[in-house]
Amino acid sequence: MLKLKAVAIDTFKENVAYLHRDCPLYRTEGFQALMKIEIYIAGNGGPVLAVLNIVDDCTIVDINELGLSIQAFKQLVKEQGVDVRIAPAKPPISLKAVHRKIAGESLKKNEFHLICQDILENRYSKMEIAAFLVACSHNGLERQEVFFLTKAMVDTGEVLNWGENIVVDKHCIGGIPGNRTTMIVMPIVAAHGMLMPKTSSRAITSPAGTADTMEVLANVELSIEQMKKVVHQNRAMLTWGGTARLAPVDDILISVERPLSMDSTGQLVASILSKKIAAGSTHLLIDIPVGPSAKIHNNQAALALRKLFEYIGDLFGLHIDVVISDGSQPIGNGVGPALEARDVQQVLTNHKNAPSDLREKSLRLAGRILEFDPDVRGGQGYNIARDILESGRAFEKMQAIILAQGAQPKKQVKAPLEYAMLASKSGYVSAINNLNIAHIASLAGAPIEKNSGVDLIKKVANKVKKGDTLFVIYASFKSDFEFSTQFAHENNAYVIAKNPPSTDDNYFI
Amino acid sequence: MLKLKAVAIDTFKENVAYLHRDCPLYRTEGFQALMKIEIYIAGNGGPVLAVLNIVDDCTIVDINELGLSIQAFKQLVKEQGVDVRIAPAKPPISLKAVHRKIAGESLKKNEFHLICQDILENRYSKMEIAAFLVACSHNGLERQEVFFLTKAMVDTGEVLNWGENIVVDKHCIGGIPGNRTTMIVMPIVAAHGMLMPKTSSRAITSPAGTADTMEVLANVELSIEQMKKVVHQNRAMLTWGGTARLAPVDDILISVERPLSMDSTGQLVASILSKKIAAGSTHLLIDIPVGPSAKIHNNQAALALRKLFEYIGDLFGLHIDVVISDGSQPIGNGVGPALEARDVQQVLTNHKNAPSDLREKSLRLAGRILEFDPDVRGGQGYNIARDILESGRAFEKMQAIILAQGAQPKKQVKAPLEYAMLASKSGYVSAINNLNIAHIASLAGAPIEKNSGVDLIKKVANKVKKGDTLFVIYASFKSDFEFSTQFAHENNAYVIAKNPPSTDDNYFI
Repeated sequence: MLKLKAVAIDTFKENVAYLHRDCPLYRTEGFQALMKIEIYIAGNGGPVLAVLNIVDDCTIVDINELGLSIQAFKQLVKEQGVDVRIAPAKPPISLKAVHRKIAGESLKKNEFHLICQDILENRYSKMEIAAFLVACSHNGLERQEVFFLTKAMVDTGEVLNWGENIVVDKHCIGGIPGNRTTMIVMPIVAAHGMLMPKTSSRAITSPAGTADTMEVLANVELSIEQMKKVVHQNRAMLTWGGTARLAPVDDILISVERPLSMDSTGQLVASILSKKIAAGSTHLLIDIPVGPSAKIHNNQAALALRKLFEYIGDLFGLHIDVVISDGSQPIGNGVGPALEARDVQQVLTNHKNAPSDLREKSLRLAGRILEFDPDVRGGQGYNIARDILESGRAFEKMQAIILAQGAQPKKQVKAPLEYAMLASKSGYVSAINNLNIAHIASLAGAPIEKNSGVDLIKKVANKVKKGDTLFVIYASFKSDFEFSTQFAHENNAYVIAKNPPSTDDNYFI
Repeated sequence: MLKLKAVAIDTFKENVAYLHRDCPLYRTEGFQALMKIEIYIAGNGGPVLAVLNIVDDCTIVDINELGLSIQAFKQLVKEQGVDVRIAPAKPPISLKAVHRKIAGESLKKNEFHLICQDILENRYSKMEIAAFLVACSHNGLERQEVFFLTKAMVDTGEVLNWGENIVVDKHCIGGIPGNRTTMIVMPIVAAHGMLMPKTSSRAITSPAGTADTMEVLANVELSIEQMKKVVHQNRAMLTWGGTARLAPVDDILISVERPLSMDSTGQLVASILSKKIAAGSTHLLIDIPVGPSAKIHNNQAALALRKLFEYIGDLFGLHIDVVISDGSQPIGNGVGPALEARDVQQVLTNHKNAPSDLREKSLRLAGRILEFDPDVRGGQGYNIARDILESGRAFEKMQAIILAQGAQPKKQVKAPLEYAMLASKSGYVSAINNLNIAHIASLAGAPIEKNSGVDLIKKVANKVKKGDTLFVIYASFKSDFEFSTQFAHENNAYVIAKNPPSTDDNYFI
């Protein structure tokens, strides 16, 4: 038995345990540094897993103590000195299935469940998770396997039940900077009276997730009870999904997948649908932007993705409507939480500077969701949405929801360091690279630094003169500022051509 | 500028840096826990990379200090208090190539070089390395790419030059427990006068590598100067390759690949050949065991592997001879360093209990290597090898090499905990599963506990009666003992059939 001690080291999402080298257990039980161990607390159920570090300094842990990094300690107990027992962790049995997946085999329903269970219990190392993800990527999953993975991720977490027949949700597959339509769609739909209890994610590698942007205006970390109260009062909410333990394995997979910039159709669909099903949605609108620097490059790929969404949705009884939208450039002007929140507020208040593309896209998406309502006549959704927005009812609804979730104090929008990127020649903006804009905003510090990011002054089809400002980079720290401006100079985000680009009428398919 | 401090935490092969949360740099420069940082020491060349942990306890690091885990600190400086500068690490540029590989594209020579360079400089996380490896696995590499990877791994490390025209080497692709032929082949070949400066690996997931077993008898961690002295005196050596920095990227890749149990033909060939080319070999004998529980399951796969070895060998001007051998069961009786060393000594001393399969296979392999000598007539190698072994000259040569490397004090061979696995019925041993035997020996503590492992009492074709001992498990620690005996009971390592198995004469192809 060892006494548990909190070691004041912050190892973020990784549980680290500290054992003294002269602890009698260290030699007699064959523990080694970096090995995974199981920690048992009497009366506390199953073990907690942590990576072992060996310590030679009694001030960090004494020879009869087991140290635990701060977050892991807080999750586990309230006070120091609790008795714990430790054992070397057995390798997860489900790894055998991962090896079969790496070898190109198909896995069974039960194997996906075991893999998700082991990942949830922290039995996988990050490199084992990476191996699983790469093996599943690029058509590594059959349709049936995407269903199994989705189901396994739903079943290893909580599932919300809102007790109504129509619970709507929307999701964009991502990749388009500034595309903050949810914050406009949600209050429109709620003002119409539909139930839209929206949970969103935070960014991992993108410059902002919807939860990051909403957090500029309101508290987004609500308990399930608080969520229910907000939704009961307002018919909607917009919170961070992480507190609700909805498909928690999805979050773990994403935390490995995003830094690796992996894009896999099967994982994408499983990730999105597991979260929506766990959140209790019955009707879901999915937005697939298509463009040369979007996640999906052509309509053929978008249609294949739509079919997969529909196939899996049908198996779960989830009503899915898919829109394929213009992903040829960022939506709105701001990229980064505070700048995006500014755009959203301008649209909601019908401000003259409101970005028209963000407004138009939000109205079209809201219209499609409104048509999930059996009482709305087909084709009338857009007009109803526009009426709600123009009447100010959407803004009022948003204000009520912000207050219910807890409004943030008003803050300065712009970060202290500012750099204007100028046009190197005259002509027309013919393309804006989503990936480069997103990367510039990320390097500038978004979303951790709420005010950092990029503000687009010119958009596609705008006429520019040499020396005009194309976009402005905002950063809070010197190193971020240097990284982002250097990257912006080395990688063109804008293409300027002699003639205006041909107009593309295929806004929505 | 921060003062560098050694933090007495052993994080094994992972560099960890500790920064106090109240350090002014932490906030102003946007550092975060688990981020990779670059550490610069004035006059010490390029940066050292480490993973950042944030500390809230001034006794661990003070606010003007940067702590560094013990191994990283030792590699870097001799004393505390040196001034260091830190910066967030830029993401490695070569990751773009890894993403292209994940997407199924072929990479160019230069891209493999950049990837290896970044991995060598500790710029990749383990999950990024895992992603690269999985993307390269299962025919993920074209022949040309295997050459590029091999070349990149050779070029990012040291290359030895022994100054002779024939420098021989042997390598078994592995997977067969107890297969310690190198320790018999090497002294035979050296007694004949050929140059065989052998570097070997330690086990990562197998119960023993040749270096682990040799270490039971002699010191295996020699500097390059010591190696040269031993080889100059004795025409051979058998040391651990890790000290010589030969293809160091290969070691890093293996440290991720093995725990994931990944087997990829391309990586296997690149790994083996990069080490041999870096070690200065000119003539190489490769042993490919084939069997249902070996790495290679049939002759067709073995032939494909042989062709790849030959293709890459030719591009480097390395003379390669491949033997395809019987991999249907373990070779010898002992599995685990001390038990294997016992078998080797019995063969070298022509002891009556010497395992005949280990002796026979070693003689055949030694014979093939002897035939690299232009003065040895084709077909005579085996007889020369047998003469050298039976005359005692191989044993004398081994003794001389052990003394030159530094002999280990004699130790007890058997571990304290012992368990005999009995036959559940009478009949003939028809198969022994290599994977299960290896796993039982690993769980028992091999190779870290030198005396732990498995001793095979019965081999394939032996007659057994119900209750006869099939094999004995030896372990040093109670938890290891329990894990291994439990696994042995849950997973049959032996198959007992009514009739003796049909004899297979295809020993070598």
